[in-house]
Amino acid sequence: MQRYFGIKKEDNRLVLDSSDYHHIKNVMRNSDGDLIEVVIDNKLHLGCIENVKSDISIFIKKELETDNDFIPKVNLIVPLLKENKMDLILQKSCEMGVSKIMIVPLKRCIVKVNDKKTKSKIDRWNRILKEASEQSFRNYIPDLEVIDSIKELDKLDGLKIVCSTKKNLNNIKRVLTENKNCDTINVVIGPEGGLDEIEELILNEYGFVSTTFGSRILRVESVPLFIMSIINYEYMEW
Amino acid sequence: MQRYFGIKKEDNRLVLDSSDYHHIKNVMRNSDGDLIEVVIDNKLHLGCIENVKSDISIFIKKELETDNDFIPKVNLIVPLLKENKMDLILQKSCEMGVSKIMIVPLKRCIVKVNDKKTKSKIDRWNRILKEASEQSFRNYIPDLEVIDSIKELDKLDGLKIVCSTKKNLNNIKRVLTENKNCDTINVVIGPEGGLDEIEELILNEYGFVSTTFGSRILRVESVPLFIMSIINYEYMEW
Repeated sequence: MQRYFGIKKEDNRLVLDSSDYHHIKNVMRNSDGDLIEVVIDNKLHLGCIENVKSDISIFIKKELETDNDFIPKVNLIVPLLKENKMDLILQKSCEMGVSKIMIVPLKRCIVKVNDKKTKSKIDRWNRILKEASEQSFRNYIPDLEVIDSIKELDKLDGLKIVCSTKKNLNNIKRVLTENKNCDTINVVIGPEGGLDEIEELILNEYGFVSTTFGSRILRVESVPLFIMSIINYEYMEW
Repeated sequence: MQRYFGIKKEDNRLVLDSSDYHHIKNVMRNSDGDLIEVVIDNKLHLGCIENVKSDISIFIKKELETDNDFIPKVNLIVPLLKENKMDLILQKSCEMGVSKIMIVPLKRCIVKVNDKKTKSKIDRWNRILKEASEQSFRNYIPDLEVIDSIKELDKLDGLKIVCSTKKNLNNIKRVLTENKNCDTINVVIGPEGGLDEIEELILNEYGFVSTTFGSRILRVESVPLFIMSIINYEYMEW
């Protein structure tokens, strides 16, 4: 069943994004009486479509039970990358259960945050997160935050990891296994060429543990997918 | 140091692909005496560039020591997908250490193998695998095979997994953990909409174990990245 994110009105009806009405009418080609899943305030509901041919309306039938996510909150902290890499990271990490994505300016970033363009970029990224959340049947859309400086990472709580290219460090498996009871996992991923040495030292001072992936050399945009996959695996029960 | 794949000539010199000479000359802008890494017959060598300005020649200085891969051979068996999804799978699974990719026709594939176009597609896919192998410092390029029928999967040896959308099955963590001594892991990934029921039964008869990823719902092109990531994690030592 198709899933959408919406806001509840007083009369037990729903307000969706204008693009969702288009999707229901012209992409899914739904008819009156068709059912959809709707997430309202992180809770899943069953909705019924009415008046498709004129002014579509969604009637909320009931709340549905859902499982809570089985992994801790994951906060991915990434540099600004080129558009196609950024899109891949947002879409795939959303699919794999990320809670929040923070975009941080780092010394070796090739792409710079440009205030004029940032607003429209953020809108675009949020659209990608919304669509990926619907398609992967999530109950909430991950938060997105563009921060001004690495200094803002000092305030974060939970397990703090920085992906390092240095040798002979703790590897990620050790760090995840030894901190399995954490509520939140914060992971900083460096740009192409890695983090600047001073930046890594600052992060270490803020409590971020430098970790490696063993001998595997991955592209920047692959790292979030790798991180999200292994966190899902680590917390998978059998 | 930049890495290339080459063939050794009798005089301890090297033959590279014509695109590699272009890369050395015009992209890397190397000079005479610059060193490169060259893989010859899966073994790593140090090469020295000569005569950049006329007819480039690479002199093989010595063989270099390398670590063997720490994961078993992984054979990913995937349906034919649209070009951008196929490219993502080839590039990322190569980065993460895949040994072989088999493309199999499956009932719910939207993209059909077309004999006329297949030859040029295979050339393109092999180019992607070669470039990804160089960039991720691999010692061999993964094999690529396009097979005619699911029946050819009967001959495979090693651990055999099929990614299933059925509920209450063994999950992938259990299957990987309980078969950690295997030499090869074969994984079949279904198309959008999943495997046809009969296809899954045929694979089960061939010894493929139906497994799930728990409650996570992933897009088809994300599954190979997830599989490769968790295999790397499972075999990571600390």
